[in-house]
Amino acid sequence: MRFSLRPQDSVFYEYFTKAAENLVRGTELLIELSVPNADVQSVSERLVEVEHDSDAITHELYNRINSTFITPFDREDIYRLGSQLDDVMDHLEAVGSLLYLYGLTSLPSLPREMHDLVAILDQQARLTAESLPRLKAMKDLKEYWVECNRLENEGDRAYRMLLVRLFSGEYDALTVMKMKEVADELEAACDAFEHVSNTVETIAVKES
Amino acid sequence: MRFSLRPQDSVFYEYFTKAAENLVRGTELLIELSVPNADVQSVSERLVEVEHDSDAITHELYNRINSTFITPFDREDIYRLGSQLDDVMDHLEAVGSLLYLYGLTSLPSLPREMHDLVAILDQQARLTAESLPRLKAMKDLKEYWVECNRLENEGDRAYRMLLVRLFSGEYDALTVMKMKEVADELEAACDAFEHVSNTVETIAVKES
Amino acid sequence: MRFSLRPQDSVFYEYFTKAAENLVRGTELLIELSVPNADVQSVSERLVEVEHDSDAITHELYNRINSTFITPFDREDIYRLGSQLDDVMDHLEAVGSLLYLYGLTSLPSLPREMHDLVAILDQQARLTAESLPRLKAMKDLKEYWVECNRLENEGDRAYRMLLVRLFSGEYDALTVMKMKEVADELEAACDAFEHVSNTVETIAVKES
Repeated sequence: MRFSLRPQDSVFYEYFTKAAENLVRGTELLIELSVPNADVQSVSERLVEVEHDSDAITHELYNRINSTFITPFDREDIYRLGSQLDDVMDHLEAVGSLLYLYGLTSLPSLPREMHDLVAILDQQARLTAESLPRLKAMKDLKEYWVECNRLENEGDRAYRMLLVRLFSGEYDALTVMKMKEVADELEAACDAFEHVSNTVETIAVKES
Repeated sequence: MRFSLRPQDSVFYEYFTKAAENLVRGTELLIELSVPNADVQSVSERLVEVEHDSDAITHELYNRINSTFITPFDREDIYRLGSQLDDVMDHLEAVGSLLYLYGLTSLPSLPREMHDLVAILDQQARLTAESLPRLKAMKDLKEYWVECNRLENEGDRAYRMLLVRLFSGEYDALTVMKMKEVADELEAACDAFEHVSNTVETIAVKES
Repeated sequence: MRFSLRPQDSVFYEYFTKAAENLVRGTELLIELSVPNADVQSVSERLVEVEHDSDAITHELYNRINSTFITPFDREDIYRLGSQLDDVMDHLEAVGSLLYLYGLTSLPSLPREMHDLVAILDQQARLTAESLPRLKAMKDLKEYWVECNRLENEGDRAYRMLLVRLFSGEYDALTVMKMKEVADELEAACDAFEHVSNTVETIAVKES
C-alpha cells in the first residue's frame, strides 16, 4: 500500500459525494413503492445492490483513511461521517427487506402516511447529496444542517401520524406490528440523516 | 453580540436550574393524568407549552456558550448537559401527545403501574432541580447521581411490571400497542434523567 | 485505600477475563431453555445470580481504576470495556426474566429461530472469553473483532427470521408482542457483544 504524505482532500470529498448520491438512489427506490402494484421484490433486490455499493464505498474510505498521514480534517470525524452515511443506507435497505419478508405486498396499498415519510427521506437525501460537496470549501454548510434538522422534525411528526393511522383499527393486530417495524426503520433513517448533518456541523465549527 | 472574557458562571448555572425546574412542571402535569377523568387534551397542550419553554432555555444556553470565551467547565459538557435536560422534556411531552393522539382517554383509567412510573419520574425531576444548583460549588453532588441511578433502576422494574400488566390479557392488542408506546416514552424519560446525572458525575470527577 | 504507582496490568486483564467467562455462564443458561420442558423459573433465577456476579466484577474494576495512577491503557477505555461487558449480561438476564414474567413457559416450545439466536450469542461469548486474555500481549486481536462482527451480522439475519416467524400468524397477537420483547433483548445482547469488540479494536489501534 502506498502512503501519501500530503492531504488528498479531493479523494475524501469524492467518497462522501458518492455515498450521498447512493442514498438518493436508495430513496428513489422507496418512492417506487408508492406506485399501486409496485413490484416489492424487485425494489428490495435493487436496494440490496445499492446497499452493497455503499458498503464498498465505506470500505474504500476506511482504507484511504488508514493509508493517509495527513487528512483534510480529523481522522475520527472522517470515519464517523463515512459510517453514518452507511447507517442511513442500512435503514433504507431494511425497509424494502421487511416489506418483502413480512408479505406486506399483499395489502392493496401502503398507508399514505408511510409515503409522506418516504418523501421526507427523499428530500433529506437530495439535500445531503447537494450539500456534502460544499465540505471542501467549508462554505454555506449552515443552511444544510438547519434544513436537515427541520426535515427531521417534520419526519417525527409524519411518523407520529403514521402510528395514529396504524392504530386506528383499520388493520388487524399482526399487520399493525409488521408495518410498525417498517415505520421504525423509516424513522431511524430520518434520524440517521440528522446524525450525518450533526457531524458536518461539528466539523465546520472546528474548522471555523 | 457582545463577548465576555471572564467566566459568567452564574448565568450558566441559572440556565440549568431553570431547565430542571421546567422538568418538574412537566412531571407535575403527568401526575394530573392519574386523576380519574383527567382532561388529557388540556394536559397535553400545557406540556407542549412547557416543552417550548425548554427549547427556548436550551437555545439561549447555546447562544451563551458560543459568545463566552471562558466557560466555568468544558464547553462540550455544558452543551451536553443542556441538550440532555432538553431530551427529558421531549419524552415527557411525547407521553401527553401520544395519550391524546391515540385516544387512550376513552379508557376508564390508565393502569396503576403507569402512575408508578410517573411518580418515579417526578422524584427524579425534583431531585435534579434540587441538585443542579449545587453544580456551582461542585459540592455534595455524589448523593445526587447515586440517588438518580437508584431511581432509574426502580423505574426499570416499574416499566417491566407495566409491560406484564399490559400483556396480561386485560386489554385488546391494539390498546396494548398504544399503551406500550406511551410506556416506552416514560421509560426513555427515566433513562434520560440518568444521562443528565451521568454528565454531572463526569463534570464533577474532572473538576475534583 | 492503597494506591499503586506502577501498572497493575495483570489485575485489569483478570477482571476482563472473569467478566467474559461470566457471559459464557449466561449464554449456557439460555441454551438450557431450548430443552423441552425447561425449568424457566430456575434458569431465570440463576441468570439473576450470574448478573449479580457481573455487577460485583464491574464494581471492583471501577474501584481499581480509581485507585491506580498508571493504567495499562486509557482509563476511559478500561471503564468503557468493563461497562460494555456488564451491558451484555443485563440483556442476557432480561431474556430469562421476561420469559418467566410473561408466562411464555406455558408454550409447548419456543420458536427454533429463537434458539438460533441464542446459539450465536453463545459463540460470541466463547469467542470473547477466548480473546480477551490476548489483550495483555495486544496480539492476534484482529481475528476476534472480525469474527465478532461476522457473528453480529449473522445475528441480525437470525433476528429478522425470528420476526418473520413471530408474524407468521402461528401465534396470537399478545404472544407475539411478548416474544418480540424477548427477541429484542437477544438482539440487543448480540449488538452489545459487538460494542465490546469495537472497544477492543479501538484500544488495539491506539496501542499499535
